[in-house]
Amino acid sequence: MPPQWIIEKKRDGAELGTEEIRAFIAGYTAGTIPDYQMSALAMAIYFNGMTPRETADLTVAMMESGKVIDPAQLPGAKVDKHSTGGIGDKISIPLAPLVASCGATVPMISGRGLGITGGTLDKLEAIPGYRTGLSESEFFQTLETCGCSMIGQTAEIAPADKKLYALRDVTATVPSIPLIVSSIMSKKMAEGIDALVLDVKCGSGAFMKSLEEARQLARALVDTGTAMGKKVIALITDMNQPLGRTVGNALEIKESLDILNGNGPEDSQGLTIELATRMLAVAEGLDLGGGVEAPALHLKNGAALATFRKMVACHGGDLAAKLPKAGNQIPLPAPKSGYLSKADAGAIGRAALLLGAGRAKTNDAIDPAVGLSNLRKIGEPIEEGEPLCIIHSNGHENETALFQTLKPAFEIASDPVEPPPLIMEEIK
Amino acid sequence: MPPQWIIEKKRDGAELGTEEIRAFIAGYTAGTIPDYQMSALAMAIYFNGMTPRETADLTVAMMESGKVIDPAQLPGAKVDKHSTGGIGDKISIPLAPLVASCGATVPMISGRGLGITGGTLDKLEAIPGYRTGLSESEFFQTLETCGCSMIGQTAEIAPADKKLYALRDVTATVPSIPLIVSSIMSKKMAEGIDALVLDVKCGSGAFMKSLEEARQLARALVDTGTAMGKKVIALITDMNQPLGRTVGNALEIKESLDILNGNGPEDSQGLTIELATRMLAVAEGLDLGGGVEAPALHLKNGAALATFRKMVACHGGDLAAKLPKAGNQIPLPAPKSGYLSKADAGAIGRAALLLGAGRAKTNDAIDPAVGLSNLRKIGEPIEEGEPLCIIHSNGHENETALFQTLKPAFEIASDPVEPPPLIMEEIK
Repeated sequence: MPPQWIIEKKRDGAELGTEEIRAFIAGYTAGTIPDYQMSALAMAIYFNGMTPRETADLTVAMMESGKVIDPAQLPGAKVDKHSTGGIGDKISIPLAPLVASCGATVPMISGRGLGITGGTLDKLEAIPGYRTGLSESEFFQTLETCGCSMIGQTAEIAPADKKLYALRDVTATVPSIPLIVSSIMSKKMAEGIDALVLDVKCGSGAFMKSLEEARQLARALVDTGTAMGKKVIALITDMNQPLGRTVGNALEIKESLDILNGNGPEDSQGLTIELATRMLAVAEGLDLGGGVEAPALHLKNGAALATFRKMVACHGGDLAAKLPKAGNQIPLPAPKSGYLSKADAGAIGRAALLLGAGRAKTNDAIDPAVGLSNLRKIGEPIEEGEPLCIIHSNGHENETALFQTLKPAFEIASDPVEPPPLIMEEIK
Repeated sequence: MPPQWIIEKKRDGAELGTEEIRAFIAGYTAGTIPDYQMSALAMAIYFNGMTPRETADLTVAMMESGKVIDPAQLPGAKVDKHSTGGIGDKISIPLAPLVASCGATVPMISGRGLGITGGTLDKLEAIPGYRTGLSESEFFQTLETCGCSMIGQTAEIAPADKKLYALRDVTATVPSIPLIVSSIMSKKMAEGIDALVLDVKCGSGAFMKSLEEARQLARALVDTGTAMGKKVIALITDMNQPLGRTVGNALEIKESLDILNGNGPEDSQGLTIELATRMLAVAEGLDLGGGVEAPALHLKNGAALATFRKMVACHGGDLAAKLPKAGNQIPLPAPKSGYLSKADAGAIGRAALLLGAGRAKTNDAIDPAVGLSNLRKIGEPIEEGEPLCIIHSNGHENETALFQTLKPAFEIASDPVEPPPLIMEEIK
């Protein structure tokens, strides 16, 4: 069937067959189907959507465009977590070693940050010497030694997604649930995992602004993973305020170490435990080294921290070396006393971008030292003049733009404010 | 503004600005905007449409991507006709010289046939020696000498349309009113004409199957031409049965000569006069050499035929030479007596394609000699065994497929049948 007939079928709202999807993606990967046919199909998918079956077929086709890792010989359940991305979301960093310390294997392939959303790889690279680009044999050796390894996407993993992702970015076909789902899941499922916990972020600092949108995405992700024979659940978590008390690469590594030491901020430490518990639970029936009680314990007894130290060493990282530190620490004083009623994650993310903590375009350089720390959380009492946060700057930013962005991010109410629940929903 | 923002704006249903459309088409013509962004925009236009203002802007942008002819120094009104294409539609061939003989200038740039729809250029090339590819100076000289010239689209005319037309064909973005309108009108308006009459075909042998669809297209064409400051009207005409009594290139030249001799079939001769009258009427106020009475007269007194002979000679054609003739003439006998109640234009077009009169793909060769003649018209009485038509074949076709296609095209009723009106509506 000529590619334009497949485009036409989707354009007219019909359901594509498994073989049609497979052939289209195979042709696109091989280059026999050009970008202009792929972008037309992507736009038709944007308008007409895809059924769960089509989305699963698209995911499988993209996954099979490249290498699928087979970690079967490694011990325990193979389990991973994926977050759709938010401000201050460093959870993967303490989470992977925590779950590995409980007996599972976590073969985590992560991404870089783009726009206001930070990336796990950028954060890890704030650790002097940490290499995110391991070879496959190094990756397997690290998994065998530590139970976890955190690397970047290789050229062999889902090349169709790599190509399509770049194309969607320049053809206004990014915000389409089946295309988002197949992009996320093709890469995650190429890890050869048995189970996956998804953290779908919802709010001003996330891609999904409303609970309804987040629900749709979570449902589609879970359905696709389930259709592929995997155990998949999703949490929808609040991203109207940043997660934890730090935003910025080295600052988030510091908070990750606090979590691994059992004394991180209540929300980021709590979410790490919640996600670890669920990762171990969805992989139930396998050797979980202590079951669902283990995560909280392993943050207290140093087991998770030991695993993290071992993993960083396997990646060439040096935790004894000093983390990068910004030249200036500037407190942002509260304009009045009261209770913090808003700490807008979107605005705080944009401020971190202005400081140089993120990249606006794919090839922008980032500054690992800059960002925000000591962020106050919604519901906390605050006195006039106390810092709402501390700005870590190397002085490269436009100061006026920074303060214009940051100041309205915070609001203070006279009456006590109920802190919003972090976990909004669970989708199974 | 990056091209993807313009795609996104149309994707989200907003109205694009004049400058946005102009920049996109200019970039596409220059090659700085790649095919994959154009196809994504085309698909977004397919789904969200365009306002009359946007469609006119798109048409102007495509027209201005190339040369716009300036026939101002030529005598009389500059007027043309465009048909959306149907089976047996040879009207342009007698019409252009007829209107020219009445004092207007007809600088007609035509297309080739694709699918079941024949092309004026293919028909003209059935005349031994006729060259459709004149240089611009030859085109102007012919217009000056004869008042009309019929050529093919040059590389200089609307190159953006040439590129986009080929792209739409392979990205399932052909059936979109704004894209169809801008494609037709950018080429026609590049002729530098003052007025245009459109013949929007409607029925089984046309692109627009229903009156509703034909009305939409006619309205959009007229509105766009009017927005560009031209006098434009449209007729919607019946294409459920073929036009005239012949289908096939040389056979249609023969019928065109019959019309120019004043003794063509009632319907094709009548429509030639109707269209000529309107072409002269919409260009009113200029010297029309006898006004709206002239067309019928000029078919009777030989003036139109003389202009045609002159034009063919200017194009290197030899009307004294024999037209190509097929090896076999096979009558298709009526299976019973009665009144012809159906002569399905779509099926008859497909039969002509099987005989080799048309091309299924752009580069297919065509046989100028083959086709169908002596086609009976709906409403005519017929005796059992009398020919429904005569098949002109060179024996290359699959005979079984031909008869399987052709036989069910005709139906005969016992009771008298009212012939359908040829002109269905007029859109101003």
